[in-house]
Amino acid sequence: MYYIIFLFALLSFPTSQAADFCVAKLKGSGSPSGYACRNPANVTADDFVFTGLSMAGNTTNIISAAVTPAFVQQFPALNGLGLSTARLDLAPGGVVPLHTHPAASEILFVASGKVTAGFVSSANVAYVKTLGKGDVMIFPQGLLHFQLNGGGTPAVAIATFNSPEPGLQILDFALFGGDFPTPLVVKTTFLDAATVKKLKGVLGGTG
Amino acid sequence: MYYIIFLFALLSFPTSQAADFCVAKLKGSGSPSGYACRNPANVTADDFVFTGLSMAGNTTNIISAAVTPAFVQQFPALNGLGLSTARLDLAPGGVVPLHTHPAASEILFVASGKVTAGFVSSANVAYVKTLGKGDVMIFPQGLLHFQLNGGGTPAVAIATFNSPEPGLQILDFALFGGDFPTPLVVKTTFLDAATVKKLKGVLGGTG
Amino acid sequence: MYYIIFLFALLSFPTSQAADFCVAKLKGSGSPSGYACRNPANVTADDFVFTGLSMAGNTTNIISAAVTPAFVQQFPALNGLGLSTARLDLAPGGVVPLHTHPAASEILFVASGKVTAGFVSSANVAYVKTLGKGDVMIFPQGLLHFQLNGGGTPAVAIATFNSPEPGLQILDFALFGGDFPTPLVVKTTFLDAATVKKLKGVLGGTG
Amino acid sequence: MYYIIFLFALLSFPTSQAADFCVAKLKGSGSPSGYACRNPANVTADDFVFTGLSMAGNTTNIISAAVTPAFVQQFPALNGLGLSTARLDLAPGGVVPLHTHPAASEILFVASGKVTAGFVSSANVAYVKTLGKGDVMIFPQGLLHFQLNGGGTPAVAIATFNSPEPGLQILDFALFGGDFPTPLVVKTTFLDAATVKKLKGVLGGTG
Amino acid sequence: MYYIIFLFALLSFPTSQAADFCVAKLKGSGSPSGYACRNPANVTADDFVFTGLSMAGNTTNIISAAVTPAFVQQFPALNGLGLSTARLDLAPGGVVPLHTHPAASEILFVASGKVTAGFVSSANVAYVKTLGKGDVMIFPQGLLHFQLNGGGTPAVAIATFNSPEPGLQILDFALFGGDFPTPLVVKTTFLDAATVKKLKGVLGGTG
Amino acid sequence: MYYIIFLFALLSFPTSQAADFCVAKLKGSGSPSGYACRNPANVTADDFVFTGLSMAGNTTNIISAAVTPAFVQQFPALNGLGLSTARLDLAPGGVVPLHTHPAASEILFVASGKVTAGFVSSANVAYVKTLGKGDVMIFPQGLLHFQLNGGGTPAVAIATFNSPEPGLQILDFALFGGDFPTPLVVKTTFLDAATVKKLKGVLGGTG
Repeated sequence: MYYIIFLFALLSFPTSQAADFCVAKLKGSGSPSGYACRNPANVTADDFVFTGLSMAGNTTNIISAAVTPAFVQQFPALNGLGLSTARLDLAPGGVVPLHTHPAASEILFVASGKVTAGFVSSANVAYVKTLGKGDVMIFPQGLLHFQLNGGGTPAVAIATFNSPEPGLQILDFALFGGDFPTPLVVKTTFLDAATVKKLKGVLGGTG
Repeated sequence: MYYIIFLFALLSFPTSQAADFCVAKLKGSGSPSGYACRNPANVTADDFVFTGLSMAGNTTNIISAAVTPAFVQQFPALNGLGLSTARLDLAPGGVVPLHTHPAASEILFVASGKVTAGFVSSANVAYVKTLGKGDVMIFPQGLLHFQLNGGGTPAVAIATFNSPEPGLQILDFALFGGDFPTPLVVKTTFLDAATVKKLKGVLGGTG
Repeated sequence: MYYIIFLFALLSFPTSQAADFCVAKLKGSGSPSGYACRNPANVTADDFVFTGLSMAGNTTNIISAAVTPAFVQQFPALNGLGLSTARLDLAPGGVVPLHTHPAASEILFVASGKVTAGFVSSANVAYVKTLGKGDVMIFPQGLLHFQLNGGGTPAVAIATFNSPEPGLQILDFALFGGDFPTPLVVKTTFLDAATVKKLKGVLGGTG
Repeated sequence: MYYIIFLFALLSFPTSQAADFCVAKLKGSGSPSGYACRNPANVTADDFVFTGLSMAGNTTNIISAAVTPAFVQQFPALNGLGLSTARLDLAPGGVVPLHTHPAASEILFVASGKVTAGFVSSANVAYVKTLGKGDVMIFPQGLLHFQLNGGGTPAVAIATFNSPEPGLQILDFALFGGDFPTPLVVKTTFLDAATVKKLKGVLGGTG
Repeated sequence: MYYIIFLFALLSFPTSQAADFCVAKLKGSGSPSGYACRNPANVTADDFVFTGLSMAGNTTNIISAAVTPAFVQQFPALNGLGLSTARLDLAPGGVVPLHTHPAASEILFVASGKVTAGFVSSANVAYVKTLGKGDVMIFPQGLLHFQLNGGGTPAVAIATFNSPEPGLQILDFALFGGDFPTPLVVKTTFLDAATVKKLKGVLGGTG
Repeated sequence: MYYIIFLFALLSFPTSQAADFCVAKLKGSGSPSGYACRNPANVTADDFVFTGLSMAGNTTNIISAAVTPAFVQQFPALNGLGLSTARLDLAPGGVVPLHTHPAASEILFVASGKVTAGFVSSANVAYVKTLGKGDVMIFPQGLLHFQLNGGGTPAVAIATFNSPEPGLQILDFALFGGDFPTPLVVKTTFLDAATVKKLKGVLGGTG
């Protein structure tokens, strides 16, 4: 009999899911804190799972490597939860070129193979190690870092970031793969114009 | 000749590593933001790598599972960088019982085997999925969640947290494994005293 | 005469109220930082006051207790201001069962009566005290805690949280009051199926 | 028999209390995030409770009011937990003069009596209300606000802040109670020198 | 030939600008974290530059001073980036009266002339200095501070804030320039009614 | 007579300066939130003022430029206050080469002369503008950016950051001025070894 009384009492407890999660509506315009939330009533367990990292990325390319992101754009449940992840596939000789994440630190777990990884500090000290299966390395926020496979077998690593949208600025693409005018690249890097033009040719840069 | 001039110029650039990282002195007493920083001059690449997750945890125990943490206490370079990680080993039938991380969200990557995982929201909705190798799942901050291996082969998963010190409160150990007085457990959970006492016997609780 | 000059000068001062407050439009979908702001021109003093805690909650129920929230959903002016509050009414023998707030610490002020309150740490240590009128207790973020009235007279307490939307996960309702499947509850808590089913009967759980 | 095996397994679980709380060592020098943490092994339930708000403050003074703080200096367990509180006693006619908290919003709960409270926005709009017992009001971070008792009976209110150390700048004391030189007060407030000197006489200011 | 392969590979790299910046759509209603983001495809270099501080503000007014803001409302690219700035023009004898920024610290750079500036701490200590060209001063968040030109030549200073929307509460305007009722001003400041009414007359206050 | 009563009453007001500021003790080891605080009783107005930006930096060097920082190491009062600044001197033809601040956004104010400045986004789009005296530009956190003087007269600019310790990673120094091994530079940038070695010669790099 007291069940009925009890259920009545429950009504005065706050049970909104809004405080728990905020699965992104990607169609909207976003805000500094992320995207608008989908209605929790329409969110299911499937929304909290991302299966896109289960398959190897295609490494048949100039860097013999692939980065498959599970950022908020790919995995909307990450919105507001302060985390994202990515799969790195490195064929033998493959490299994720020097890059930064403007808004996140990164922790790297080597799932298979061997990965040589490193970062350069503001004091221009390089911290480089070769990691085996199961090793982890931490890359402090915003510093230049890289991963490469110096071994003879493919390697897979999982990078995780403390932001749903860590950003990714790949040095070579920033310099040579976009519209950064060659005279400015030369002036601000000390590279000579011939080198800049050659790499723009390879990486598709204009300007 | 201008090299000398140039090196002189460098002196007016700030090159402190202090802004980049703050590898923890664990011996000190800590503060709300973490531990005091070691002198960067004595920090090497080895400090940024943790190898303790490369070996399987011992699952010969009542839960047929092991959690091997790489939190700031084990991996001091994480201090102040907003990330930590842990390895989960789940023998067939193994389970990481219901637990919360008081100060972090968690993203789980299944490295091998199959893992059934889930969390319960504030609205008392359970979000449960069985993950295969390479799948990832996100667990929002502070909610009860679990991982178990319902399959016939061992499973390994990597959990990553957006805090160097995410905390870990395992429900059964909180209720039955410490000094929480039995009358208070009964009063605040609706479990009967006999059940509480039996589980305290199993899990070593007092009170 | 100089008044006119002065008023002209005022035009170059920024006087937007936008930086001061952001009273929530609850109808919208929200974002990780909270809800969209109402037009400040339509906000009045009444918006900053909540009167819903002035009356006792109904404690005629199975727990002899009531929790009346003043979270952002009830009190939209809290949006973005980092605080919320709730009133606890505890009849003699009443209890707010073990629960967590996933995203906030809590400070409790006893307005009348006596309240026995406590939390359990990650190290499975229970911190329990009986508070008299005017005493305050702090509950660290995300840990299991409870409040109960072991005395013979009603008690009232005010809980305040450092989030407009602290969340509330009540352990019993999470385990036995929603759709968490019984086999998974059993597997992840070590409770036996009979106990789980009995409590699901009481608390209305399915699965 | 399996108990022994199980306890062995527990050793691989992290059970540090460090992530849960950081009770302040007030003797140290502090840091931007707060004070150093006491050893959790020496922390007891008593540390999480503050009894200093249970007695009325002495209102036999020029403002007929008293503010009794439970900030981190009085209640060290608040360190790092993002909350603090204070008791306001207002005799009939009593007033907490215009003031700001530089680093926190405030939520006010009226425990007894009637309190007229208000704040002024950046757009110079005053939001004022008279609150009865049980009412709450929110004061956005950093804005000038006040509380006064316009009724005939004493009033008590509890103010809670989203910082362990909210700061408190009382306008009159800032202008007239310290060493702010009179010519600068005159120049920066448009008050005339006679008024400033008179109030400095009352409030003990120098300069 | 491998260029084509390479461009294919690029497709698996995340290149969204969303993580980099969020130029405000000011027409929308805003949220606690700021405004909605404009489509990055329509953002140009012009959006990241603000030219409105290049001209002197009009100091022909009662305070012989002008504050020209470059807050997010004037400079939408600041949205979400944690910074804003303002130009201060101070004619000889000019003053920016006592004020606070509710949500930001301020750093002041003197571009020309001499500026006497200061703030008052919560302990009612005034910290005052006269700054020459090129000097900088820091004003901690939320405290009363001022800038004045005691010299014989105009002065220009640049104030920068660690918030896109720092807020600005000018003490005199809060007390005497809006609708704060005179009896409440008197009661909460110890100023006498005649003084309050006189200053309300000058500054246009009502109530 | 009531003055004495009043002063007694003041004793129950919290007047600690600790919440207002935390001037750094630079000798200590620091923590993720910054340095330990000096005793406020020994802090004076001089601590809040930095005069080191009033003189031009020496631009007689390879880049015809100088960066003079006022970060927390130079200006300890910034500790915990979320801001720092720096003076840029650019002789004709001078350049601050491509660099990032790992932990801060930057706002640049041109105090004299003309400055061409720009940043490259994660989508490899360059945003470049030539700024005149009084113009400001915002550089989002963590992205590559530069400043140069393409005009015929010296230029001075003030950069301000939303961190007391923004970090500074100059691309050329990271690649060619430290100990980053040449084979790894080659492998991770696509530059050829001859170019790397030549620039290491100029910039003093080893490895």
